[in-house]
Amino acid sequence: MGSMHVLGISGSLRAASHNSALLRAAQELAPPGMEVEIYDGIGTLPHYDQDLEAEAPESVGTLRRKIRESDGLLIATPEYNYGPPGVLKNAIDWASRPAASSPLLHKPIALVSAAPTNFGGVRAQLALRQAFLWTDSDVVTKPELIVFRSQDRFDDAGRLVDEATRELLGGVLEALAAKVVASRTVAA
Amino acid sequence: MGSMHVLGISGSLRAASHNSALLRAAQELAPPGMEVEIYDGIGTLPHYDQDLEAEAPESVGTLRRKIRESDGLLIATPEYNYGPPGVLKNAIDWASRPAASSPLLHKPIALVSAAPTNFGGVRAQLALRQAFLWTDSDVVTKPELIVFRSQDRFDDAGRLVDEATRELLGGVLEALAAKVVASRTVAA
Amino acid sequence: MGSMHVLGISGSLRAASHNSALLRAAQELAPPGMEVEIYDGIGTLPHYDQDLEAEAPESVGTLRRKIRESDGLLIATPEYNYGPPGVLKNAIDWASRPAASSPLLHKPIALVSAAPTNFGGVRAQLALRQAFLWTDSDVVTKPELIVFRSQDRFDDAGRLVDEATRELLGGVLEALAAKVVASRTVAA
Amino acid sequence: MGSMHVLGISGSLRAASHNSALLRAAQELAPPGMEVEIYDGIGTLPHYDQDLEAEAPESVGTLRRKIRESDGLLIATPEYNYGPPGVLKNAIDWASRPAASSPLLHKPIALVSAAPTNFGGVRAQLALRQAFLWTDSDVVTKPELIVFRSQDRFDDAGRLVDEATRELLGGVLEALAAKVVASRTVAA
Repeated sequence: MGSMHVLGISGSLRAASHNSALLRAAQELAPPGMEVEIYDGIGTLPHYDQDLEAEAPESVGTLRRKIRESDGLLIATPEYNYGPPGVLKNAIDWASRPAASSPLLHKPIALVSAAPTNFGGVRAQLALRQAFLWTDSDVVTKPELIVFRSQDRFDDAGRLVDEATRELLGGVLEALAAKVVASRTVAA
Repeated sequence: MGSMHVLGISGSLRAASHNSALLRAAQELAPPGMEVEIYDGIGTLPHYDQDLEAEAPESVGTLRRKIRESDGLLIATPEYNYGPPGVLKNAIDWASRPAASSPLLHKPIALVSAAPTNFGGVRAQLALRQAFLWTDSDVVTKPELIVFRSQDRFDDAGRLVDEATRELLGGVLEALAAKVVASRTVAA
Repeated sequence: MGSMHVLGISGSLRAASHNSALLRAAQELAPPGMEVEIYDGIGTLPHYDQDLEAEAPESVGTLRRKIRESDGLLIATPEYNYGPPGVLKNAIDWASRPAASSPLLHKPIALVSAAPTNFGGVRAQLALRQAFLWTDSDVVTKPELIVFRSQDRFDDAGRLVDEATRELLGGVLEALAAKVVASRTVAA
Repeated sequence: MGSMHVLGISGSLRAASHNSALLRAAQELAPPGMEVEIYDGIGTLPHYDQDLEAEAPESVGTLRRKIRESDGLLIATPEYNYGPPGVLKNAIDWASRPAASSPLLHKPIALVSAAPTNFGGVRAQLALRQAFLWTDSDVVTKPELIVFRSQDRFDDAGRLVDEATRELLGGVLEALAAKVVASRTVAA
């Protein structure tokens, strides 16, 4: 499938986040030719303010450029208050402007989530899917990876040890790769 | 109905925001006994990070205290990417912790939105309602105020001049007042 | 709290439905003074057709009357395609008209769900909550009862045997009762 | 693009429905090679009942066959109670089973909506998108067609006369055609 560069974004700033750990697992489990770079800058972005658009700080430019240069995104989201964290939505808000030239436009994206609860972020994933309708991104539908009771799937060092979850994550990455390949066909 | 202190929160940081202008209009239109204070600090909050909980900065403490001391909230949200702005969700994320003692618990809340589009933030309002399920807040259902094509309802100085919208906003504030009164009855 | 008549509606037509079984469990677990009647007529309603409003069949009149005469509703929903079953939504569609005099207006409602999946109908519950915004119904927020892997909570005769679930269902009924009491206070 | 057979499904049973009228407009506006057949049988389907799966009536078999034989679906939905009509969801519920061989699997689908309100069914469209995640259908994201104040866009005979809406509908059909072509490429 040629070489493929995926940008991984975790919605959690916690050091021991299972969502960030999912991204590290994705680096291990990526199919041949796919490389997963972890972007860890969402915490350094200012709050989105339309008045700042003209003089957006460098951190915003870096985010936009990294998304633009990637072949696809892998987003791992925790669930806060039945939705994605504000800090993650804020990164999407910045990346979505200006609408006509947003790097999110048509971008292949895979969403995963992890949470210690019984429901694993299922509502946050649904809410994020709604955001990516506006940006007309190309979001993987299946398989879905919703890591509930995440404390049972990672070891103390934050390594994903649950075999079923590893397989499912591999499937998500394959589905993302298929979207990237299809987008190249269309563009060619 | 006795005196009532409402905290107004705008989800937009823009100086000329129509959502912020809705809050100013609410100050004019509040029913007798209701005072609306505008909190304009969401842009000064850090990004939510669970690791910072123990040493949350003063801005977070101020937000939580202001919510706790209010009788109810009036939240005006723009719509970014079919949802509430990250910066507004971030404020909610901070206010929602720790869950058992969150100042949002059972808090009467009214949601309004304004946008220059044909749909006026209808999707952002729905998504916010979902957030306040988790916090078990007491959110006004009707009337709904969704200010579409907001540029037609405000004058250049940001004053709400559309009569129908003013009336609807008054109705929202009455409904919020009724929830505050009911919550006092329960508590009494 | 005086006597209270709750109408139970299951969104599933299956004979062995765990959602219908939840309603039977609610009959056992209702707090003193609350009686739960099970309405099992949603399968006999015609498909909603606005052209039939003027001559709506008797089954529709019965549904509307039963809702009107009840103090509150207990709705148990399965999840089909990430939403409530069409047959349940159809009953709500009939009950919601005409809007100004709908028996759902301000009606206290508790929502529960059961499913054999890991997620127990969480998405269907969220979607139903959205429907009851339009009708301005008074929906219980907490506790939430989402019976995932429902086959582990009921015995072969369809009796709810899981103690934690029984307790949670009792809590839902208490919360519904509190809404009924509050609505009487307002009306008085 | 070769010949293409699209099945149109209206969620409204009303004779004078603007959603049904949108489908007729689509027949006029279809790009060269695309034919739009209107399926008007959703009102004849029984309510979904899993116990009937083994002996599903002929109407169900017809729906499933028509979907399977189509290259894509065009679904026009009204909004009842902030969601799609029960009768439309019921048709989807039948079509979605059994999951592994559902004719909705990977099916290209375009969603449109019309309503006399200011918001034109925007919430119903969002809710339907959620349903088609489960079925892993391939739903057109843009352009979106949300016909608000629909009475202003159709003449008394139910002909779509608003030029901007006609153009947008044409764009939706082009986007659906592109998905059909892409699905053939993958399958080839």
